[in-house]
Amino acid sequence: MRCLIPFAADQPKTRLEPLLSLTDRQAFATAMLADVLDAVDTAGIDPTVISTASIDDDRVTSRAAVTVDDRELTAAINARLTDGQPTLVVMADLPLVQADDIGRLVDSEADITIAPGVGGGTNALVVREPAFRVDYHGASYCDHRRAAADLGAAVETVDSRRLATDVDEPADLAEVLIHGTGAAREWLVKNGFELDTDEGRVGVQQGE
Amino acid sequence: MRCLIPFAADQPKTRLEPLLSLTDRQAFATAMLADVLDAVDTAGIDPTVISTASIDDDRVTSRAAVTVDDRELTAAINARLTDGQPTLVVMADLPLVQADDIGRLVDSEADITIAPGVGGGTNALVVREPAFRVDYHGASYCDHRRAAADLGAAVETVDSRRLATDVDEPADLAEVLIHGTGAAREWLVKNGFELDTDEGRVGVQQGE
Repeated sequence: MRCLIPFAADQPKTRLEPLLSLTDRQAFATAMLADVLDAVDTAGIDPTVISTASIDDDRVTSRAAVTVDDRELTAAINARLTDGQPTLVVMADLPLVQADDIGRLVDSEADITIAPGVGGGTNALVVREPAFRVDYHGASYCDHRRAAADLGAAVETVDSRRLATDVDEPADLAEVLIHGTGAAREWLVKNGFELDTDEGRVGVQQGE
Repeated sequence: MRCLIPFAADQPKTRLEPLLSLTDRQAFATAMLADVLDAVDTAGIDPTVISTASIDDDRVTSRAAVTVDDRELTAAINARLTDGQPTLVVMADLPLVQADDIGRLVDSEADITIAPGVGGGTNALVVREPAFRVDYHGASYCDHRRAAADLGAAVETVDSRRLATDVDEPADLAEVLIHGTGAAREWLVKNGFELDTDEGRVGVQQGE
């Protein structure tokens, strides 16, 4: 199955600005992408990274084709869905994802399979209905369900915490420190981030 | 398998104070408990609710034994684990949980099985190791892993978004509106809550 992984190489993870500089955000976002590619690769799938700029990182280029496309996310994906090929779209900011989770997506035979993110997003999506188009603005999970219903397409969801955990905001970094096992967690630890267990929900702090 | 569901009947969900009065928090918390009991019941398990006060609600009393115990959570659970019986502990604030998710927990044969919550919590737990004791303070997922390792007990995790979604804070209500199908969602809708899709992540607002 074709697999597309969109990646904002130039201005990634803007909601982490309070904690990380642009250079750091690029390095951390690339580490998360490497974790996703590791899972996809282990699941036996050859992905294409649709990136807003070229990527010069072995962990990426050794495991994926990289296509530069400066259109925004929705347009870049829809341009490729027009050929009607079954397609798996996985977000690049899911550093907890494992090969089994990718397998659950690919094994689903529904017209549309969605792994929802926290907050109404669509973190991963399998499209087998040729007329379906994505819309990643706002509560895309609800919009995608509605679009599928309009086409009479059956929808399944994949219930996975790991697929649901997209990393956008400072609080999300705690999930990577607690549950991560790959490059993204390693990057955070190397850069001094540690769990802060003082609050009701666990946060992060940057040590010396 | 014995199933314990702790419930703070007198002062539930204090982090929802900005949105809900005490009476409303009690009604909403009871609706979430009813959803959890529905899932547990459908999974063929007879639960006991360990409540800080008596509960007068058919949706609860028709599906569960209710035991009043005013000790705090950790002490109330550990007092029961001393008899060494295999025990499933499920939090009462998981309104998205379904019978299949309970089945995944019960089917696991590990000494300790954990369904982690967002933020390092332990939303559901199966204890088959008689010497294991819980500690729900702070990052309990990490503490429980450590306690299991100290006993040489094998740990498995259940990767479920629905089990990971405990409802503590106003933003969590969006998950119930988006994905809920039971009493908790119904209560929110009846009380005028609706999705607010203006922000980056979807929030909630209370209409007229």
